[in-house]
Amino acid sequence: MTQPEAIRLLLQAVAHGEVSPDSALEKLKHFDFEPVEDFARIDHHRTLRTGFPEVIWGPGKTPEQIIEIIKVMRDRNPVVMATRIEPNVYAQLREQIPELHYYALARICALVPARLEPRHSGTIGLLSAGTADLPVAEEAAITAELSGFQVKRFWDVGVAGIHRLLSNRQAIAEADVLIVVAGMEGALPSVVGGLTDCPVIAVPTSIGYGASFNGLAALLTMLNSCAAGIGVVNIDNGFGAAVLAGQILRTAQKLR
Amino acid sequence: MTQPEAIRLLLQAVAHGEVSPDSALEKLKHFDFEPVEDFARIDHHRTLRTGFPEVIWGPGKTPEQIIEIIKVMRDRNPVVMATRIEPNVYAQLREQIPELHYYALARICALVPARLEPRHSGTIGLLSAGTADLPVAEEAAITAELSGFQVKRFWDVGVAGIHRLLSNRQAIAEADVLIVVAGMEGALPSVVGGLTDCPVIAVPTSIGYGASFNGLAALLTMLNSCAAGIGVVNIDNGFGAAVLAGQILRTAQKLR
Amino acid sequence: MTQPEAIRLLLQAVAHGEVSPDSALEKLKHFDFEPVEDFARIDHHRTLRTGFPEVIWGPGKTPEQIIEIIKVMRDRNPVVMATRIEPNVYAQLREQIPELHYYALARICALVPARLEPRHSGTIGLLSAGTADLPVAEEAAITAELSGFQVKRFWDVGVAGIHRLLSNRQAIAEADVLIVVAGMEGALPSVVGGLTDCPVIAVPTSIGYGASFNGLAALLTMLNSCAAGIGVVNIDNGFGAAVLAGQILRTAQKLR
Amino acid sequence: MTQPEAIRLLLQAVAHGEVSPDSALEKLKHFDFEPVEDFARIDHHRTLRTGFPEVIWGPGKTPEQIIEIIKVMRDRNPVVMATRIEPNVYAQLREQIPELHYYALARICALVPARLEPRHSGTIGLLSAGTADLPVAEEAAITAELSGFQVKRFWDVGVAGIHRLLSNRQAIAEADVLIVVAGMEGALPSVVGGLTDCPVIAVPTSIGYGASFNGLAALLTMLNSCAAGIGVVNIDNGFGAAVLAGQILRTAQKLR
Amino acid sequence: MTQPEAIRLLLQAVAHGEVSPDSALEKLKHFDFEPVEDFARIDHHRTLRTGFPEVIWGPGKTPEQIIEIIKVMRDRNPVVMATRIEPNVYAQLREQIPELHYYALARICALVPARLEPRHSGTIGLLSAGTADLPVAEEAAITAELSGFQVKRFWDVGVAGIHRLLSNRQAIAEADVLIVVAGMEGALPSVVGGLTDCPVIAVPTSIGYGASFNGLAALLTMLNSCAAGIGVVNIDNGFGAAVLAGQILRTAQKLR
Amino acid sequence: MTQPEAIRLLLQAVAHGEVSPDSALEKLKHFDFEPVEDFARIDHHRTLRTGFPEVIWGPGKTPEQIIEIIKVMRDRNPVVMATRIEPNVYAQLREQIPELHYYALARICALVPARLEPRHSGTIGLLSAGTADLPVAEEAAITAELSGFQVKRFWDVGVAGIHRLLSNRQAIAEADVLIVVAGMEGALPSVVGGLTDCPVIAVPTSIGYGASFNGLAALLTMLNSCAAGIGVVNIDNGFGAAVLAGQILRTAQKLR
Amino acid sequence: MTQPEAIRLLLQAVAHGEVSPDSALEKLKHFDFEPVEDFARIDHHRTLRTGFPEVIWGPGKTPEQIIEIIKVMRDRNPVVMATRIEPNVYAQLREQIPELHYYALARICALVPARLEPRHSGTIGLLSAGTADLPVAEEAAITAELSGFQVKRFWDVGVAGIHRLLSNRQAIAEADVLIVVAGMEGALPSVVGGLTDCPVIAVPTSIGYGASFNGLAALLTMLNSCAAGIGVVNIDNGFGAAVLAGQILRTAQKLR
Amino acid sequence: MTQPEAIRLLLQAVAHGEVSPDSALEKLKHFDFEPVEDFARIDHHRTLRTGFPEVIWGPGKTPEQIIEIIKVMRDRNPVVMATRIEPNVYAQLREQIPELHYYALARICALVPARLEPRHSGTIGLLSAGTADLPVAEEAAITAELSGFQVKRFWDVGVAGIHRLLSNRQAIAEADVLIVVAGMEGALPSVVGGLTDCPVIAVPTSIGYGASFNGLAALLTMLNSCAAGIGVVNIDNGFGAAVLAGQILRTAQKLR
Repeated sequence: MTQPEAIRLLLQAVAHGEVSPDSALEKLKHFDFEPVEDFARIDHHRTLRTGFPEVIWGPGKTPEQIIEIIKVMRDRNPVVMATRIEPNVYAQLREQIPELHYYALARICALVPARLEPRHSGTIGLLSAGTADLPVAEEAAITAELSGFQVKRFWDVGVAGIHRLLSNRQAIAEADVLIVVAGMEGALPSVVGGLTDCPVIAVPTSIGYGASFNGLAALLTMLNSCAAGIGVVNIDNGFGAAVLAGQILRTAQKLR
Repeated sequence: MTQPEAIRLLLQAVAHGEVSPDSALEKLKHFDFEPVEDFARIDHHRTLRTGFPEVIWGPGKTPEQIIEIIKVMRDRNPVVMATRIEPNVYAQLREQIPELHYYALARICALVPARLEPRHSGTIGLLSAGTADLPVAEEAAITAELSGFQVKRFWDVGVAGIHRLLSNRQAIAEADVLIVVAGMEGALPSVVGGLTDCPVIAVPTSIGYGASFNGLAALLTMLNSCAAGIGVVNIDNGFGAAVLAGQILRTAQKLR
Repeated sequence: MTQPEAIRLLLQAVAHGEVSPDSALEKLKHFDFEPVEDFARIDHHRTLRTGFPEVIWGPGKTPEQIIEIIKVMRDRNPVVMATRIEPNVYAQLREQIPELHYYALARICALVPARLEPRHSGTIGLLSAGTADLPVAEEAAITAELSGFQVKRFWDVGVAGIHRLLSNRQAIAEADVLIVVAGMEGALPSVVGGLTDCPVIAVPTSIGYGASFNGLAALLTMLNSCAAGIGVVNIDNGFGAAVLAGQILRTAQKLR
Repeated sequence: MTQPEAIRLLLQAVAHGEVSPDSALEKLKHFDFEPVEDFARIDHHRTLRTGFPEVIWGPGKTPEQIIEIIKVMRDRNPVVMATRIEPNVYAQLREQIPELHYYALARICALVPARLEPRHSGTIGLLSAGTADLPVAEEAAITAELSGFQVKRFWDVGVAGIHRLLSNRQAIAEADVLIVVAGMEGALPSVVGGLTDCPVIAVPTSIGYGASFNGLAALLTMLNSCAAGIGVVNIDNGFGAAVLAGQILRTAQKLR
Repeated sequence: MTQPEAIRLLLQAVAHGEVSPDSALEKLKHFDFEPVEDFARIDHHRTLRTGFPEVIWGPGKTPEQIIEIIKVMRDRNPVVMATRIEPNVYAQLREQIPELHYYALARICALVPARLEPRHSGTIGLLSAGTADLPVAEEAAITAELSGFQVKRFWDVGVAGIHRLLSNRQAIAEADVLIVVAGMEGALPSVVGGLTDCPVIAVPTSIGYGASFNGLAALLTMLNSCAAGIGVVNIDNGFGAAVLAGQILRTAQKLR
Repeated sequence: MTQPEAIRLLLQAVAHGEVSPDSALEKLKHFDFEPVEDFARIDHHRTLRTGFPEVIWGPGKTPEQIIEIIKVMRDRNPVVMATRIEPNVYAQLREQIPELHYYALARICALVPARLEPRHSGTIGLLSAGTADLPVAEEAAITAELSGFQVKRFWDVGVAGIHRLLSNRQAIAEADVLIVVAGMEGALPSVVGGLTDCPVIAVPTSIGYGASFNGLAALLTMLNSCAAGIGVVNIDNGFGAAVLAGQILRTAQKLR
Repeated sequence: MTQPEAIRLLLQAVAHGEVSPDSALEKLKHFDFEPVEDFARIDHHRTLRTGFPEVIWGPGKTPEQIIEIIKVMRDRNPVVMATRIEPNVYAQLREQIPELHYYALARICALVPARLEPRHSGTIGLLSAGTADLPVAEEAAITAELSGFQVKRFWDVGVAGIHRLLSNRQAIAEADVLIVVAGMEGALPSVVGGLTDCPVIAVPTSIGYGASFNGLAALLTMLNSCAAGIGVVNIDNGFGAAVLAGQILRTAQKLR
Repeated sequence: MTQPEAIRLLLQAVAHGEVSPDSALEKLKHFDFEPVEDFARIDHHRTLRTGFPEVIWGPGKTPEQIIEIIKVMRDRNPVVMATRIEPNVYAQLREQIPELHYYALARICALVPARLEPRHSGTIGLLSAGTADLPVAEEAAITAELSGFQVKRFWDVGVAGIHRLLSNRQAIAEADVLIVVAGMEGALPSVVGGLTDCPVIAVPTSIGYGASFNGLAALLTMLNSCAAGIGVVNIDNGFGAAVLAGQILRTAQKLR
């Protein structure tokens, strides 16, 4: 039995009252995907399951592959996005999909609906240590906003000028979950973790030189933080931090 | 002006209606601490601020130091706990503080009230890959329970026998936040992250040999997970994972 | 005595019945090679000995050197192949050897006979975790096919969507040896190793970023797999995995 | 429906001719396991699936835990074995299970039937570079023998005295699969891989000092071997090498 | 000409007015040393040259060797000290040299004059992040005090409780040079470096676990500090930090 | 209350004699900063606090961002500088700010007053081991000179020709603080540290190849120096070394 | 007194019989050098002292700097050479110094006398494992030949085809010192070390990919060789190997 | 044909004048070895081939194994030695072989003839940087002396007190080959290499702490030495350095 047949049978069962919609939804979550030109299988139901669209990771894919995947995905997802898209790649994508929007600093391409408003409660506070960390911080910010979350940005609040951070402490304390982005020595999450009582997601960046070893120093700093309650993601992984922050806020909504 | 004076003035202001209790609480969060025999300053108000007690990290402290810190802390905190306490250290502590309870597998000592029941909503699902990972998994479990959270354990569900994990999928899906503990290749969080849509906290353990490099292999696996939405803590840091899970559930409560 | 003389004497001995053909073959396996312009010695009898042609590893060789080596090898080997050939290098090779075929995704150049059909029994199952791992996976696939083995491909079955893998389980189980290619966290071989009872060859790829350290994370994951019975090859070494898979199937044939 | 019920129903279906035995076997392979005192789930059907018994990895388990697991497993498996058992641990195990046999050099404990003869065709050739590598080599040898394979040992044939290796070349060439164990610089598999045309499994050991970094040097050597067709396992993982060798020989039997 | 002769001639020249005392002092700085039982050459004039006594580094020396070196040095130096002396080693030293004083937390043994008072102007501020960092911090403190400098200690002021640090800011600002000792993530020097305008010497400690890699994480953090003007010493090198701090204060005195 | 208002009130208080100038200066040190196009907050009072201008770190910033920051900073600082500026970036900066001076070897851009003379007492001795280390050494030299310190250069005095160093010993001894720049094996600071009694700042460079691992070898050498009293900065961090040297000399001035 | 004056006085003393020529030579060895445009100090007497010319290491120097250094050196040295010179750099050098010879494979530029014949006894045997290792091997060969030594080349004798090496054993055994160049797993020196009784100098190359980590794997292999009597130089350091080989042969000559 | 037969035939051929003694010796070099209790094969002719006895590397061997190997070897070798023998192991060996001599500092056991005098010309100069490096330095010294070479020791001449080294320069220059032993930053070989024109063998030791990473820092320093002509051996490998030095001096003898 092919998968489409299986889905049709399931939906008939729902129609006949033999299976409840809730139960059918649960089944569908782990069910369907279809081949795209044989080089990638897209999981359309992932949106149902995780609340985030299937996102295209740009590196290692040709512009042609990205275009084809976007075209398959756009029919079913309100928001389609691709990360780590360099400007020259975007230029090629735009020729085929003119309505594609480009967030240059975040290096994200997206198809977005006319109105994109926060549709989840809660706020993600986003702190970045230095100007050079902004591309990663914006990758997190745009990802969160495209996923329907409200974001509040605090840029350039690194620990070498601790007063910059402290003067924003009140505003930071109002966020429900914090993403803290820092390169070089990566100490900002430790200080923030000691100031707040909400979950902190730490994002090391590859900014630095010499003994930063492309972000290894910042990564180790964050993993060894003396402030408990910090979850770390991969170096430069602004996208993953936004997904985790979103899942935390969605959990909160479910618990209500 | 000394700190005690400052606090007294603040409380008088509250008494006179000049400062609201909420506002005073906010001020107190970043205020007081006192010296303990000159070797450690305890932050009594941390409980107010983060919802977790100040926890004593055992390694590098003499039994005498641990006893003294417990004695200072017990007057104000309902729950006092110390982590990474080896059996022989516990034996020394118990002589001075007989009511100290020892969770042998978790290597945690604690003073606990007569009745310790979950006082927060939400459930923490705790998965561990192998039998040898249990000490770290139990450190997370006991920490969460001592902090008032409900924990559901799924032991020995590593990826080499994927059916063990899949046969528990329904039960796992009911948790609000997951802590996934794994040593050796550390692949469990990736698989779990693809099955669920709640936040996943990954804890690498130092279990393994040879090219596991004391947990480095598992740590790198978790940081590079192809499943987005995973926050990683330090190797063997079951305690930190529990704190982060607790903060996520508390955030949910605040959002309500 | 020069080598050609030695070989001639050996063959005369065979002609005179003084040496049996089998015995002469055995001697020849460890005997002959000839200088090619003084920069590489080609081992023509390697095909006899291992069943695989001497393969040219492209990096670090000039197009001129590659052309010259191909020309020497083509006189005696039915299949001649060169790996890690970038498109611009191929363009130069083609000018001198127009009949050279290029497998672009696998980055392999080859001289192939008109009909290339599997001439060994058994099937190599080839799994790859993500789209970006395809160049390495195809290097393995093309190498195996050029060596006369039957290959069955399963692309994009990474662990973050475990149902993709499980829905192919029946087909995967029919392979006689598996090559599993994965970058990022490299967890796929561990899961596959738990599902099957045939030999598994794991190939880490350099796909990933940050703490993947150019494939080190995937490599460590595979070496530490909790599923026993997995042999690991170098990062991005699709070629070596195919050779090992081929040797395993040839061993099976010899045992019959 | 509990698992035992499910199995009973399946077997009844077989009895009634509704399900063929082959098909039922296939289903059982991914089916059953049972809790052992809540700390480990044993996969009894693994023997059916992989041809190897579930093996107990000693480190990180108390003697009591090992004894309990052995007792559960012995009812159904003809051979039960535990690896990495130090002599003092064995002494404790023997008190409870006097019939337990100890292979001191291999650090393996096992319950073995009265007659243990090779029950698979094919021979595993086992080479070790130095005297200090013997514990790892013997772990491989005993594992293979307990699993029913024939083993031929070649000890102390390291590359610094290449004539030792070459004088055994004829005998080595008769093996169907080779396991090559080496510490220090780990060069032996490269040389062996060039001499033979059967699959080679390389096992780095932690023998060495200084820049051997506990086996890292030997591991890297083996992964970078210029001889294609070598699969590498973790440092000191003699057990895993034996399992892989066994799976290769079983594949050969199936192909017949 | 032997060295004693050379020195005698030099001093005669001084006596005759042929060489000025200043000039002779300069010459002597690079001149004399004498063998001690053939296993170590002591540089008696080092005190003249650097203002610090020749210090005995304990590890790798037998108690007998340490005793012999102390005995040779004590005749000419007012203060003799040995670092990294474990309590059991001290017990052996004391039997031969009863007047040896032991600073247990700092693991330093020293022969000290009856009155040891600061004889240099300026103050060294010494900050430590956590209780477990105290042995290293005290090694620095005692070394500085034995060398005649005034030390002001600020213990347990780590960044996770930033208010502890800030409440001491005034006092810290009064120091002329700061030594900042921290393990785990090692972020304290970065924050301190942003708050002050005096030289900061950062000392990483090996305190931590897992991904702290015995102090590597803290070391990298300090080297990558975004606050310029921080000099880093080796992991756990409290002694070296004190020497550098002392040289800075001595430079200040010379400039006057 | 906005920050400008706060500053105005403070200055009025000074004008009215309510706050002393010294006290106001102290307050200002930790007070003001203003947003620049929302991507960086500049700390204008940092000059007051540390004696060094806020310096722009070039990498990761666009020429447009650098120009904008320079324009904001130039109104208040006598000297504005940007480091790690490649020639092509400078070409773009110069178009907008023609009076910008470029120190090509040091890769520093600066706005400098007509007369730039040392305004601090004391001399910084700058040693470099090889010709290839000059860019880093000059970064240190120019930074120090732009900050008002006197610099004396000793180029190409590496340890492989020890007589080159020794023949300059007298001149080197006259410096008040030394910066020692070396790549490859990085041994120069150890030798210099043994020859002098002033503070030594060691700067490893990324010059070298193979096992220098981009400066890691030199960095480790300097951290492990057997000569105590050496502070190490990050690889290639000539700027940071100059800042630390300057702070040491300023400390000396304050102590007077 | 300037250095030239010092040398003149020394030579006059020789002329007057006051200083023997031998003694003067000894003095001169540690005496003279002169500034070249202030960026490099050349040690003209190094040739006298070590028998090798001062060699210019190309990387990090501009063509102009290289030209200037060559011009200063050529007046006094019969042979002047520069290493690591890429073809485009050579093109620039040749315009100024047309008689400069370029060894393209070795990437060496040199001024050579009309006749360059071996002027030292003894032979250096040079083995390389693969074609891609030739640039490093040729750097060693040309350096040795330019220094007056006789070289015998054995190319492409890697361990994966051990018969290639063994068939040259007689010829190899006739060399007085061996340089063995190998990338990838770097096993060749171990095998050679076991076959010969002359000194072996091992040169790891950066040839390889993945877990070769740019030559680290080969380097560790060589350092851990089980064949004693092997000296290792830096990755890709063909030049250094040739210098060491030359010093060994010169020592032999002196001993005569 | 067994090996003994082969040898007998060879010797008969010599007796009959069919094979010259020289030629037979050459053949024998690669010929014979015999099993010792099946755990190690000893290469008796190695002495003929390399001039050094087969040496027993202690670690990983039981005292019983060592004793047995010594007993087999003593019948044919005038000198038998075992390295890395801890005092408690020696105590066990002495019970069985009372005439075994123990060099405690070098941790070497040896059977030595009544008179052990240098039987090779040339001198090995042995320098060590610090007292803690002596065990490694003595391992080299004793190995060389037991092999018949003359050794001259220079202890405690590390670079932090450069005058200690320089004052011995004349004596050092008289050695024919130098072994330089250093831990911590390992800079001594670079300085020595610049002072001398004989071959230098560098031995890093594991002495140090923190960022010395058990000798890695010293190893990297030596590999990156800016003084060409230095061969490096493994960390703590005093034995290997002595063998290499001996082979260099033997080469000199052969060249005569």
